[in-house]
Amino acid sequence: MSPTRNARVLFNSVPTGFPEPGKTTVYDDTKTIDVDNVSLDGGFLVKTLVLSIDPYMRGRMRAPEAKSYSPPFTLGEPIASHGVGVVVRSELPEVKQGDHIYGLLSHEEYSVRKNLEGLTTIKNEHNLPWSVYVGAAGMPGKTAYMAWKEYSKANNGETAFVTTGGGPVGSLVIQLAKLDGLKVIASAGSDEKVKFMESIGADVAFNYKTTNTAEVLEKHGPIDVYWDNVGGEVLDQALVAANTGARFIECGMISGYNTGGKPIQNMMLVVGKSLSINGFIVTRLQPKYDAEFYATVPAKLANGELKYTEEISNGLDKVGDVILAVQKGTNKAKAVIKVADN
Amino acid sequence: MSPTRNARVLFNSVPTGFPEPGKTTVYDDTKTIDVDNVSLDGGFLVKTLVLSIDPYMRGRMRAPEAKSYSPPFTLGEPIASHGVGVVVRSELPEVKQGDHIYGLLSHEEYSVRKNLEGLTTIKNEHNLPWSVYVGAAGMPGKTAYMAWKEYSKANNGETAFVTTGGGPVGSLVIQLAKLDGLKVIASAGSDEKVKFMESIGADVAFNYKTTNTAEVLEKHGPIDVYWDNVGGEVLDQALVAANTGARFIECGMISGYNTGGKPIQNMMLVVGKSLSINGFIVTRLQPKYDAEFYATVPAKLANGELKYTEEISNGLDKVGDVILAVQKGTNKAKAVIKVADN
Repeated sequence: MSPTRNARVLFNSVPTGFPEPGKTTVYDDTKTIDVDNVSLDGGFLVKTLVLSIDPYMRGRMRAPEAKSYSPPFTLGEPIASHGVGVVVRSELPEVKQGDHIYGLLSHEEYSVRKNLEGLTTIKNEHNLPWSVYVGAAGMPGKTAYMAWKEYSKANNGETAFVTTGGGPVGSLVIQLAKLDGLKVIASAGSDEKVKFMESIGADVAFNYKTTNTAEVLEKHGPIDVYWDNVGGEVLDQALVAANTGARFIECGMISGYNTGGKPIQNMMLVVGKSLSINGFIVTRLQPKYDAEFYATVPAKLANGELKYTEEISNGLDKVGDVILAVQKGTNKAKAVIKVADN
Repeated sequence: MSPTRNARVLFNSVPTGFPEPGKTTVYDDTKTIDVDNVSLDGGFLVKTLVLSIDPYMRGRMRAPEAKSYSPPFTLGEPIASHGVGVVVRSELPEVKQGDHIYGLLSHEEYSVRKNLEGLTTIKNEHNLPWSVYVGAAGMPGKTAYMAWKEYSKANNGETAFVTTGGGPVGSLVIQLAKLDGLKVIASAGSDEKVKFMESIGADVAFNYKTTNTAEVLEKHGPIDVYWDNVGGEVLDQALVAANTGARFIECGMISGYNTGGKPIQNMMLVVGKSLSINGFIVTRLQPKYDAEFYATVPAKLANGELKYTEEISNGLDKVGDVILAVQKGTNKAKAVIKVADN
């Protein structure tokens, strides 16, 4: 068979502020691959179907000497993110042609993997679209589900404040909080997202770009659980609005990823209000909750008990733009790149 | 019997920075009391023996409209703190003359109490000096013991960093950490306190006024438990020095009590390092740990298994100076006012 295009997205330069499409990352369609004959070396060939674009990816766009919880991308090499692919050929006994695998995938149309390290096979018993496995049934969904279970200590009748409530993590947190009987205050950056948050049960949903967060919290607080995807000024406002004994779940601080975080003024309230602030990385919670997650969440997403939204862009050439949109919050819903239909 | 002097310490004005002896608080020896005949109204008369001077008292020296976890002192009225007194007369069946009571006492030589609300009777089975019951066997000791048990999740071989390690809270934390098998880094503000910290087992003890905290943490860290009595810049340095999964115990932030706290720059590390930050007020932990504390700590203080130091000043006229010393950290050890011998 003639060579097939193997387009990819390369990490090209370390951004100083927001990532710039075409500069921070570049789309490269000059490579080809011989799908039938490429050497597998005992591994298997994956055709990429969908790739997730997530806020945390900004943290990997750094110089190699800066330490953080996830390794930096390598300049000149493809970036990676969670994705689903289908196995085209395999020399590995436990992996069969046609299997679907989930995990961190290279941003290439095709890639050869040596083994299943960092990957899991998806059975998809509920016939969800593959894109859902990088959203509500994937890393973002696990992030919401596992940290809510581990840290919220939610009690019926309490109040939660959820930031970026229109996204894949926040929107699941809203629904989990409602299932636990909490009043939910939720913020997002567009009126469309506000409507979505209301549709999934948020009691008080607002657009933080047009409504004053501190005033909303003053009126509808105090809050017992704070789901933080934002950090900076909003974290400071949440400290002021916190009830005694409130739990803060620190999932992310996107306000600081591109422009440096605003320092926190109100940390002294942590003592007087007996607050607990819990940062986490979902991979540390997975051993405890993975089985429970896959046993419950995909089924509820399939039968509509849990709702999700997606914004799907077609082709690896869109990756740079979608990365920027996610960092700026201008994406409409969980950002997914569709690389191939099947 | 002729009237007896009943000196007291009044809250005189709200300080803007450090409290000023004679201005923030004033010593007043113009009052007298007829110890034999003062009306008890069904209550009992307490003669104050010892009073504790603690860092948190600065927080009560505020205007009544400012909210916080403990009520503000009342202008023109005596201040209060933890103390031990002896019952001189009683009309309350459950309180006998000669009983010793512990709890928040008014800064007066004598005071009439209606009931035992907020007070406990001390048996003192181990013949400790009464002063110890406002220090290592009192609120500061409980603060150290209960929060260490609740939040440290200490594992043998880990490293703890303890601030204000020369004080009654920090010095007990150092000893509890050593008992749990941790390496202990401890800071205090004088060479004398450094020597004391070494004598109770601190592996790395340093004077933060003459030694760079960040460098010590860089050399002897990373840290798994951070006991914070300081806040501000040191909290920021501890965030940098924290290991993945470290626990921060937020006991106090004295760096901000008098001059406003420095904002925290490094909160984003909470996410990437999966940190948990736990603020607490000891009264919330007492129901869970009070019995265990009294069953174990006084005995160990009496037999020398746990060590403590005190700096005792004689007379209520010293209260203003000692309050200032505690806020500035120029006191040498747990600050106690001896009001009467027995």
